[in-house]
Amino acid sequence: MLEIRFDPKKGIWCEDEESLEKLEKNHFGEKRETPLGSNVKADKPFGGKIWLEIEEALFLINFQNASCIGPGKKEMGFNELASAYVEKEPRLFVRYNAYRDWRDRGLIAKRMKTIKKGQGKKGWKRYPAKDLKLPKLKATAVWYPDSLFSVIEDESVGKKLFEEHWIGQLGIYKQDRGKLLKLEFMEAIFLAKHAKLKVVSAETGKEINADQILDFVTEKREYAKQLYEIYEDWRLKGFVLKTGFKFGSHFRIYFPGAKPIVDDKWIHSRHVLHVFPKDQKMLISEWSRAVRVAHGVKKTFLLGIPEMKQEDYVDYPEDFLAYRRKKEGNNWIRETPDDRPRYLLVSVSEDEHIGGIELASLLKKAQTLGLELLLSISDRETAITYYVLKRVVLPGSGYEYYEIEWMKP
Amino acid sequence: MLEIRFDPKKGIWCEDEESLEKLEKNHFGEKRETPLGSNVKADKPFGGKIWLEIEEALFLINFQNASCIGPGKKEMGFNELASAYVEKEPRLFVRYNAYRDWRDRGLIAKRMKTIKKGQGKKGWKRYPAKDLKLPKLKATAVWYPDSLFSVIEDESVGKKLFEEHWIGQLGIYKQDRGKLLKLEFMEAIFLAKHAKLKVVSAETGKEINADQILDFVTEKREYAKQLYEIYEDWRLKGFVLKTGFKFGSHFRIYFPGAKPIVDDKWIHSRHVLHVFPKDQKMLISEWSRAVRVAHGVKKTFLLGIPEMKQEDYVDYPEDFLAYRRKKEGNNWIRETPDDRPRYLLVSVSEDEHIGGIELASLLKKAQTLGLELLLSISDRETAITYYVLKRVVLPGSGYEYYEIEWMKP
Repeated sequence: MLEIRFDPKKGIWCEDEESLEKLEKNHFGEKRETPLGSNVKADKPFGGKIWLEIEEALFLINFQNASCIGPGKKEMGFNELASAYVEKEPRLFVRYNAYRDWRDRGLIAKRMKTIKKGQGKKGWKRYPAKDLKLPKLKATAVWYPDSLFSVIEDESVGKKLFEEHWIGQLGIYKQDRGKLLKLEFMEAIFLAKHAKLKVVSAETGKEINADQILDFVTEKREYAKQLYEIYEDWRLKGFVLKTGFKFGSHFRIYFPGAKPIVDDKWIHSRHVLHVFPKDQKMLISEWSRAVRVAHGVKKTFLLGIPEMKQEDYVDYPEDFLAYRRKKEGNNWIRETPDDRPRYLLVSVSEDEHIGGIELASLLKKAQTLGLELLLSISDRETAITYYVLKRVVLPGSGYEYYEIEWMKP
Repeated sequence: MLEIRFDPKKGIWCEDEESLEKLEKNHFGEKRETPLGSNVKADKPFGGKIWLEIEEALFLINFQNASCIGPGKKEMGFNELASAYVEKEPRLFVRYNAYRDWRDRGLIAKRMKTIKKGQGKKGWKRYPAKDLKLPKLKATAVWYPDSLFSVIEDESVGKKLFEEHWIGQLGIYKQDRGKLLKLEFMEAIFLAKHAKLKVVSAETGKEINADQILDFVTEKREYAKQLYEIYEDWRLKGFVLKTGFKFGSHFRIYFPGAKPIVDDKWIHSRHVLHVFPKDQKMLISEWSRAVRVAHGVKKTFLLGIPEMKQEDYVDYPEDFLAYRRKKEGNNWIRETPDDRPRYLLVSVSEDEHIGGIELASLLKKAQTLGLELLLSISDRETAITYYVLKRVVLPGSGYEYYEIEWMKP
């Protein structure tokens, strides 16, 4: 029988021999002479006690049948002990639930104390970039402002743009009929800016430039500027970006050189890209929905957070360092705090919000430490969904991109 | 060769015999003596001309090789003709694109003139309701405000609530371990209000009532009140509502009498329910994403728009009446304006917004006319996705609900 003790002035600890042995073996708590958070060095020799974090104690009570003795030798239940900590740690239950799930899978998670900076760019992926060469266009597109579409009637220009650069939509989608090239707003802006396309407003009959189109769209469609910046960033590096509407994302992406039809077949995208503006706050459930659709259609989900500047980054609190499993001989065994941690674990619930800045800051922190970022999302039934975020390098880009993968530990 | 004519003062018409015959056979335009929109009765005998709407003319130019002769006998292309109409019809291109897709599938769409009110409650579905009987609870839940969760430690109460009413989560999701009953915020509010559950704040140790919890949550999580109202509405009628997080929606729904485990098996939901607050404006692409996830997991998607009052409804413009196919003998033939129309078609693009009020108003208009509402969404590649919205009746409810189905014409 595990026995743990609580004193509101000191914290939670364990001191009987049998319990100490069990806790040590399973990497609960920390051996120290003084309570957690005091000034004594963590590496001081073991002083006969193991001090526990609140989530460790709650887990032991809930799943290891531990009994917790509080002031006046009274046994304390889950709620009583948790209540003693909730002022200091308001998000206690969500954090506990993340910890509970990870431990319950036989894996170890610890609060972050000191960890050295990462030894490498762990988990980075480099995408292939290729300079885009666009023709100087001698064509006119007519811009329908309230529809956010433009139309090029010149068939030879339309065919070239569509078949060689996959810009615009020639005729009907996935059919070989119709001769008009329809440009969505980003394509019109991009061609006006980089291929001297003349764009004329259907309303005024006057020429308008790239900036004017973007300003107009920005008034109607929030974050149009951020969408366009990401669009331009990838397009200039040779990637093909088309709408990701059918896959629940802003864009689907094809690698440089992609054309709509190869050997009489329509090619399939394998990546979708979603833009998360830095000043946008999103419900976790909404954020997750976008990843979920991409996962459902077996595409890699990429996230771009544009416009992040050095001064934007904040110190957003992580929750745990998480360890997973490693191979020893022919067996997979769990990693312990003696191994390098794998993940910077952040726990959130479906009804909380996350902002672009907070996410970018967490990603940067993880990256600095050489870790991957692991998002642990508690739904209202306390079930957990995990997403791993890995940095992607788009050569020549000033922005940062991340692949997000659904993960089952 | 189809020949159509345009005069900025009159409109678009056709007058040569061969063209008239073709147009009439294919239900383009309207036979009248005077231009469209004038006061002459539409049923006046044919005066030798067929007058065309702009989208009809653009379609004929683009796909039927029609030539359009304008002022000074000059031939006019798509852009020139469209530009002449864009001031009067700013969303012309999106509307045209919806029309283009429907006609291109061999189906007929017409602008709405006069149509009689519907003869029946076409397409309504009635859901089974059953009064909920809850016990008076003699238990206490501890509420963790910033986590939005509550915990009941009393195992017999927890077991009863979970197993008989499927309220809360007993232990670990889909596992038979753990004894705490975890309540999400709506469950705690619901039990405090309808089963006299005592809820005590972990922070203050004081009892708080249902309204106080809801007020607190509303400050942290937008539209919490609307979510709760829908939750309560269905729960009181015997339905089981659990989080729809894994399916990208607010709730998953089970019909009255559902229990988490039947014959040792976890039961599966077949419906998800999403709440669309009347004052929320959503990007079509975001709105569609929620439907898409539900469709991907083969669940029926239900939409609830709470709090609509008589005075909230607006006259939101529809685009077309749409006809489909009917069986004649052993063949499917297309319906014509001589048949009753099926759909009230509304065209939008992925970068436009729709609000709860607008959608509820459109649904009401369709319902009054005895039609189903058909949403035609143009993505940035001008491909169209169709959703059909059908009314659902939840007996005893003051709110309106709709099933949304992805449709391929």
